Amino acid sequence: MTDPTFHVYDTTLRDGAQQEGINLSVADKLAIAPLLDELGVGFIEGGWPGAVPKDTEFFKRAAKELDLRNAELAAFGATRKPGTRAVDDPQVRALVDSEASVVTVVAKSDVRHVERALRTTPDENLAMITDTVTFLRREGRRVVVDAEHFFDGFAVDAAYARAAVLAAFEAGAEVVALCDTNGGMLPDQVREVVLDLRAHVGPAAVLGMHAHNDSGCAVANTLAAVEAGCAHVQGTVNGYGERTGNADLLSVVANLELKLGRPVLARTEGVPGGLAELTRIAHAISELTNISPFARQPYVGASAFAHKAGLHASAIKVDPDLYQHTDPGLVGNDMRMLVSDMAGRASIELKGRQLGYDLAEHPDVLARLTHRVKDSEANGYTFEAADASFELLLVEEVEGRRPTYFRVESWRAIVERNGGRGTPATAEATVKLHAGGERIVSTGEGNGPVNALDHALRQALLRVYPELGEFELIDFKVRILDQMHGTDAVTRVLIETTDGETSWSTVGVGPNLIEASWEALTDSTIWGLRHHGVAPR
Amino acid sequence: MTDPTFHVYDTTLRDGAQQEGINLSVADKLAIAPLLDELGVGFIEGGWPGAVPKDTEFFKRAAKELDLRNAELAAFGATRKPGTRAVDDPQVRALVDSEASVVTVVAKSDVRHVERALRTTPDENLAMITDTVTFLRREGRRVVVDAEHFFDGFAVDAAYARAAVLAAFEAGAEVVALCDTNGGMLPDQVREVVLDLRAHVGPAAVLGMHAHNDSGCAVANTLAAVEAGCAHVQGTVNGYGERTGNADLLSVVANLELKLGRPVLARTEGVPGGLAELTRIAHAISELTNISPFARQPYVGASAFAHKAGLHASAIKVDPDLYQHTDPGLVGNDMRMLVSDMAGRASIELKGRQLGYDLAEHPDVLARLTHRVKDSEANGYTFEAADASFELLLVEEVEGRRPTYFRVESWRAIVERNGGRGTPATAEATVKLHAGGERIVSTGEGNGPVNALDHALRQALLRVYPELGEFELIDFKVRILDQMHGTDAVTRVLIETTDGETSWSTVGVGPNLIEASWEALTDSTIWGLRHHGVAPR
Repeated sequence: MTDPTFHVYDTTLRDGAQQEGINLSVADKLAIAPLLDELGVGFIEGGWPGAVPKDTEFFKRAAKELDLRNAELAAFGATRKPGTRAVDDPQVRALVDSEASVVTVVAKSDVRHVERALRTTPDENLAMITDTVTFLRREGRRVVVDAEHFFDGFAVDAAYARAAVLAAFEAGAEVVALCDTNGGMLPDQVREVVLDLRAHVGPAAVLGMHAHNDSGCAVANTLAAVEAGCAHVQGTVNGYGERTGNADLLSVVANLELKLGRPVLARTEGVPGGLAELTRIAHAISELTNISPFARQPYVGASAFAHKAGLHASAIKVDPDLYQHTDPGLVGNDMRMLVSDMAGRASIELKGRQLGYDLAEHPDVLARLTHRVKDSEANGYTFEAADASFELLLVEEVEGRRPTYFRVESWRAIVERNGGRGTPATAEATVKLHAGGERIVSTGEGNGPVNALDHALRQALLRVYPELGEFELIDFKVRILDQMHGTDAVTRVLIETTDGETSWSTVGVGPNLIEASWEALTDSTIWGLRHHGVAPR
Repeated sequence: MTDPTFHVYDTTLRDGAQQEGINLSVADKLAIAPLLDELGVGFIEGGWPGAVPKDTEFFKRAAKELDLRNAELAAFGATRKPGTRAVDDPQVRALVDSEASVVTVVAKSDVRHVERALRTTPDENLAMITDTVTFLRREGRRVVVDAEHFFDGFAVDAAYARAAVLAAFEAGAEVVALCDTNGGMLPDQVREVVLDLRAHVGPAAVLGMHAHNDSGCAVANTLAAVEAGCAHVQGTVNGYGERTGNADLLSVVANLELKLGRPVLARTEGVPGGLAELTRIAHAISELTNISPFARQPYVGASAFAHKAGLHASAIKVDPDLYQHTDPGLVGNDMRMLVSDMAGRASIELKGRQLGYDLAEHPDVLARLTHRVKDSEANGYTFEAADASFELLLVEEVEGRRPTYFRVESWRAIVERNGGRGTPATAEATVKLHAGGERIVSTGEGNGPVNALDHALRQALLRVYPELGEFELIDFKVRILDQMHGTDAVTRVLIETTDGETSWSTVGVGPNLIEASWEALTDSTIWGLRHHGVAPR
């Protein structure tokens, strides 16, 4: 049974977004939050409303658009400014205005930072904590205090670091999270400090841990803190974060559940979620952050359960548990070397069933489809985020061919700029195709080549298939797959289309970005028409 | 003073080479070994002579070609086969023939592996250890025994696991390394087992630790073992290895030296080496393995000391040590300020100083530059990953204009496909520009429009600027910025170029992907020429 008093607190959307190369839009955040909820975290820190305009918008839209099952949204901010009152501080006010039920305020607990960075007195800093927490409690918020630079501060002036934590609890904070902000701690040091603090705050106080990975020990530091009495862990999906990143929340929860026997993720009976979805959710979020997944990532990495064939191959086949630290199925991953065919088939069969096809009754189709999926994936395709392309592949294997709504004769896209820097470029595309018994030539313009191709294709088909009028492209993602070949690299394009009610995703791959986009565009059109029950004309 | 009794044992060339995607030639190994020696490790495990033909060759050539200052080469192999004698076992014989002064033999210590994988009796396995070690000692070799699956075996049958270790020591092994072969241990478990074993083997026996990172705790597990009494640590550079990899030896030694005050790397007075070369050596080895460096890697990663939050920039300037867990110079890395949308004047000033411009003396330039950076970022630019574009902006503000190496009249890119699905598309680009007093028209082909434009631009300029011949595009990243507008969205392109010695990144932004790519391509060319001291011709 999951321990309801233990907090799994995710800060991917706030501290994770500090990572070099991550720049999340409001839409990205609105797409990531439900995945975190599905995983079963208890808290999702969404950003800093008031300080960052797009975070203000996120909380506004989240209140209307998100329907979270397990998690509460937390707004992040800081204690009030020195020499003011919390009630008059617009930054604190914005946290209340965000309407998040949980507010997390960062507070200084290292006396050097109080004096040199905040430039105020140690006493005023304590007053800022007391005043801010008291105000937020009075406004009906649950309050978490992040004690910034806590471990470094403890080393310099333990009494002051303790005083900051005690001030927060006395003012009504539900949790004080001890932050290794600079990330240089080692597990034994963390344990020692947490044990000391536990003795001072009393058994009822909830302490938390917020670790960074600068010494390569963020996960171990978090576990050491839990074993020393912390009941609240902060981290980010895939360990995203500034510098070396935050504690990878995925490794933390997997270790807690699988190694230490502490179920901490919320689960709804009969609803997919929890640890078994760990790998899928990790990869889905990496698509949204557009950060390539790290193959060696514990538990969820593509290589995490991959064995190089060799010495032990036959022994692994007989007794896989002798060669893996945990069953990869428990975290939704696969042992790749020996069971990959079986596991692949099983998940493809499952996927087929979700789409309404019983492939178990057609083992030959299942085998061919599994082969094609594996072959495509080896060439850079991903079907994880492109259900519609997967379904077209499945339809092709089940029905012998994919639906032919049109036959393309040729297409061409031209981008040109006549002038120097500052002159706008123009894009134009021509599509020649056959549909509804005619040959159609259509030219479209756009602000880029893919946009122009989309316009030309849509315009060409609209007369024959007026149903297309409802379709709209809502997302377009590009990933370069092989980092070492510059513009020679293979490109993967993911396209998401909506008809106003449902949305679907398709994938295209190739060395030529425009060609890959064309593949995803045409697949999107075909899937949409088929989904609407339109027969080829 | 470095502790001469403590062993830093590198297995990059053997266990690290098990990583998916790594395939080291003999020449690669001969190039990596001197770098490990320079770092100051005591042992370099070179491979498995006899079992792997290229490893046999490596040891043969290493004996003649390598001149190691600090490290001894270790040959890796296994205990003899069941039911034979070590002296008659060709695999054991090959270890002696390698002429390595140190031989490391892997031995089973998990009774389940003895019975199910080795298919022999527990007693025969102990005899194999005794016989093999005795033989190798008699041949004059220093012997390390890797106790495979030791921790898993200890959990199942501690007495047998201990017996395997004791058999090795009794036969004359210098070190027994305890292997967490499946990588699932946590630090507290490691500590407990090592403490137990220490009590059984006596104070003179040297125990070692060999950790894998499957629970994300390999570094912490290694440190826990050291604190519990191990005096020999095994690991790999950059944490290379099968599945999630081995313990990252770089993090292990940096933590031991900087956090625990135990100098463990060999140093030769007056010769560069040791921890100060950590970052350079990590990157040099990643060039040889052809595995892209992981930006978030502790101590040596490109992001390891990079700060984004503008919030603290002014404080960082005054007191950098408040914001870093260690001085990056101690591991040969740099503190880097990322210019991001949270950045203010202070971080831009700091960034300027890193590039060699003192903007504090030019407050008007600093103000204009800050304004332009913020303005550009609001339009989708990011300079945190595009130092070269930032520098061109800075140069423009400081010198009044950016260098004019060429003047573009027009460019055009065409992508077309004449045929249906499966027919390949072609890409062609034409560039018209003025440089070196002439008007140049150049056409390039490529596998995509950006590739074709890159070829056309390069070809146009090469006659006037032959320096361009060394430049090569090595990375191309595309990001769609506003998720909700499909192909109408704004696109950001990041390009990385190298001249073989240094590499630089530029950014381009716009609704048109090709136009954004063109901007990044031309900026890259301009920065590169300027960096090489080339004057506009």
